[in-house]
Amino acid sequence: MTPEEFRAEAHRLVDFIADYRRDVERHPVMAQVAPGDVRRALPAEPPERGEPFDAILRDVERVIVPGLSHWQHPRFFGYFPSNGLLASVLGDFLSTGLGVLGLSWQSSPALTELEEVACNWARRMLGLSDAWSGVIQDTASTSTLVALLCARERASDFSEARGGLQETGAAPLVVYFSEQAHSSVQKAALLAGFGRAHLRLIPCDAAYAMRPDALAEAMARDVAAGMRPCAVVATTGTTTTTALDPLAPIAAVARAHGVWLHVDAAMAGSAMILPECRWMWDGVESADSLIVNAHKWLGAAFDCTLYFVRDPQHLVRVMSTNPSYLRSSADAEVKNFRDWGIPLGRRFRALKLWCLVREQGVEGLRARLRRDLENARWLEAQVRADRDWRVLAPAPLQTLCVRHAPAGLDGDALDRHTLAWVERVNRSGEAYLTPAMLDGRWMVRVSIGAYPTERAHVDALWTAMRAAAHATDETQAAS
Amino acid sequence: MTPEEFRAEAHRLVDFIADYRRDVERHPVMAQVAPGDVRRALPAEPPERGEPFDAILRDVERVIVPGLSHWQHPRFFGYFPSNGLLASVLGDFLSTGLGVLGLSWQSSPALTELEEVACNWARRMLGLSDAWSGVIQDTASTSTLVALLCARERASDFSEARGGLQETGAAPLVVYFSEQAHSSVQKAALLAGFGRAHLRLIPCDAAYAMRPDALAEAMARDVAAGMRPCAVVATTGTTTTTALDPLAPIAAVARAHGVWLHVDAAMAGSAMILPECRWMWDGVESADSLIVNAHKWLGAAFDCTLYFVRDPQHLVRVMSTNPSYLRSSADAEVKNFRDWGIPLGRRFRALKLWCLVREQGVEGLRARLRRDLENARWLEAQVRADRDWRVLAPAPLQTLCVRHAPAGLDGDALDRHTLAWVERVNRSGEAYLTPAMLDGRWMVRVSIGAYPTERAHVDALWTAMRAAAHATDETQAAS
Repeated sequence: MTPEEFRAEAHRLVDFIADYRRDVERHPVMAQVAPGDVRRALPAEPPERGEPFDAILRDVERVIVPGLSHWQHPRFFGYFPSNGLLASVLGDFLSTGLGVLGLSWQSSPALTELEEVACNWARRMLGLSDAWSGVIQDTASTSTLVALLCARERASDFSEARGGLQETGAAPLVVYFSEQAHSSVQKAALLAGFGRAHLRLIPCDAAYAMRPDALAEAMARDVAAGMRPCAVVATTGTTTTTALDPLAPIAAVARAHGVWLHVDAAMAGSAMILPECRWMWDGVESADSLIVNAHKWLGAAFDCTLYFVRDPQHLVRVMSTNPSYLRSSADAEVKNFRDWGIPLGRRFRALKLWCLVREQGVEGLRARLRRDLENARWLEAQVRADRDWRVLAPAPLQTLCVRHAPAGLDGDALDRHTLAWVERVNRSGEAYLTPAMLDGRWMVRVSIGAYPTERAHVDALWTAMRAAAHATDETQAAS
Repeated sequence: MTPEEFRAEAHRLVDFIADYRRDVERHPVMAQVAPGDVRRALPAEPPERGEPFDAILRDVERVIVPGLSHWQHPRFFGYFPSNGLLASVLGDFLSTGLGVLGLSWQSSPALTELEEVACNWARRMLGLSDAWSGVIQDTASTSTLVALLCARERASDFSEARGGLQETGAAPLVVYFSEQAHSSVQKAALLAGFGRAHLRLIPCDAAYAMRPDALAEAMARDVAAGMRPCAVVATTGTTTTTALDPLAPIAAVARAHGVWLHVDAAMAGSAMILPECRWMWDGVESADSLIVNAHKWLGAAFDCTLYFVRDPQHLVRVMSTNPSYLRSSADAEVKNFRDWGIPLGRRFRALKLWCLVREQGVEGLRARLRRDLENARWLEAQVRADRDWRVLAPAPLQTLCVRHAPAGLDGDALDRHTLAWVERVNRSGEAYLTPAMLDGRWMVRVSIGAYPTERAHVDALWTAMRAAAHATDETQAAS
């Protein structure tokens, strides 16, 4: 494909994408396909000869689009929002179109320096002090792994340079996080080699936030048993309920034991561009590392996780490599971000964040987040006003945990009812919701904040939820 | 930005990118900026109010483009090629434009199923048996870490479920790779917790390939010393010289010790679409895991590393998480690729690979790679025919290691000369080359294979190399 052929095809593709975003509401939110449908509709063998691009685009329309669950749909209330605002999409187009790679500063200086600028912008928007240095990683999962690797190495006096974590004789290192922490925290701790026997799931209070007293007790117990507390992962905005672990008292406990504090603000971090929300992570300046997913509520096209660290030397010491083919005369004066994370090769991710912030302005981003918070307050009021529905957890942000609990229904029957009505909503294509367990029972998360979601869509959702719950009652009564 | 505003801006952006690709040759290949130039040209504060997109695009032209080293330039001969062919760029535009996310099959079924299709296509193109299962990861660095984590867990009977790698009492696990292996292998082994004391850099033969006899000896020594061989990383196409570790005898040694064999074919893997090159990884079917960077020579837009594994259950057992909010009724019938790697959230990366293969056809991809191999043979003949130049290593693929070594120049003086002439070429903007060390001395890698590179560009490079070397002679003679 020559640049001129690309020009023609890309214009068609841009119209396809603009139409898709404009008309996305016409699609069922959740894909209505069965396992294997998409795979079976496509050739199993690669073509020997090249095909015209419009044949490919026809297959995208015919096979791929019907196989999507539509995250940019105004009635997407599943998981957490993963907004790719259109200005950010343009920034990512630029990144892919330019096709440059960051291996070192020299391999494309603007890639590194715009990342410094964009991370500094983000830091200021979030109200963080200038003691933080930022870098863009792919996801929160990878970033938490990076943080726990740094914690492991700091606590073991950089054992990687000697016998590694398998050196015998040292006190085992222990990692602490709440029982509501994201699954990626446990995964990262296991991958980092701590072992399940050295993970402590700290109990939560009635608001599903980590109990600092229980954290302190767990650490004291471990120390008494000859183990060594290594890291605490606190969450600002847990996945199930957006609970807020109290960072200031947790930081005090961490400090007393010389332990690494990593703050997972993957979701709630976006809200910190609102001064009225910053109480939620009071104490964050005491953390060692911090992540905010700019690709969630804020609107940067996935993937764009902001990783902030107080002392980048830990990162560099744990992650750096310096083979001859990557050295340049500029190395002493520049940042080489390959030493701030796992991959060597890096996309020009800063463009999608920088374009987003410039095109929206901080006030534009704030206005949209406030709209979503108001929509969540509105829905919460509706649910609370209906005697058959329950709000199950505090909703400090834009995610509501609800259950339809008509009189006489409880235990396993209530679970079956919950899963039945949410499945009915999802299969209808009217809206997409995520069921999850809370205190051992199923409930439904309503996560508001897809960028095209206005009050009318939340209203339509509430109607669909009640209709589905009612229809499920009828079905069960009839069976 | 509304979809209609996006449409207008994206059309302009597409023209910008088409022009950039058409005219890329007008830019100096290596960025001519000094550290801090780009950063200082941009505001340090995020804008409070939004800006029109064309103001952003003007800054891209004014500040960003001059700060790039141009990887898609026909006279880019640095590192390894990282081709983003334009059909693949369109596939990536689609991915970003659709903005869907793979957390589970259900979260966007086509994302998972097209990845299965594209990985199967790649497997067939590479001549691999159907005993392999594929998944797309971001980079070789991450993929090698994933492989070593799986090796660690298999060798330790899945210690992550117990005390982790820090469990005392077991024989320390040892990892083996050649002294020419990529820096990411050592980094991955250190991050996985093995410790530098348990890494063995195996000596190479005269062709810079791992010596299987030396590998066998190292393992025997470690076993005798009470340690346990855990993993071997063999390389098909090393970074410095594209050396080919002999996989069949290495696999025999690995098998004798029950050790995980990971094959890093990040660069040379692309060549395996050419039947005449497949002898280069003879024995690969005996490996446990294998990586091929589709984003290098093959032409998929970065990032797109193919990770093939014989038994995906190892991956799933080491990587899987199953929180309630990610479960669906389809889970028993589908692949959930989050359990095949580190990140939970996943982009729709398969589109950029699938679009590339469809638009080019296998024969189109083969023809381009053969063109590059012929260009490398041509340049090798020119260099060998000039008595002042040396070819320093076998060049089975498209990367040539050369040195200008006029009579009377050796030792440190030769090193200074080498670094001076390559710096002269790079600073001229005429071409981009990567110096590297071989046997303790500097030399220059010429890596041919940027997709717009034709014979005339290689010819121009050879002229520029000789002119720079000559001018450097003059300078040194004068000083």
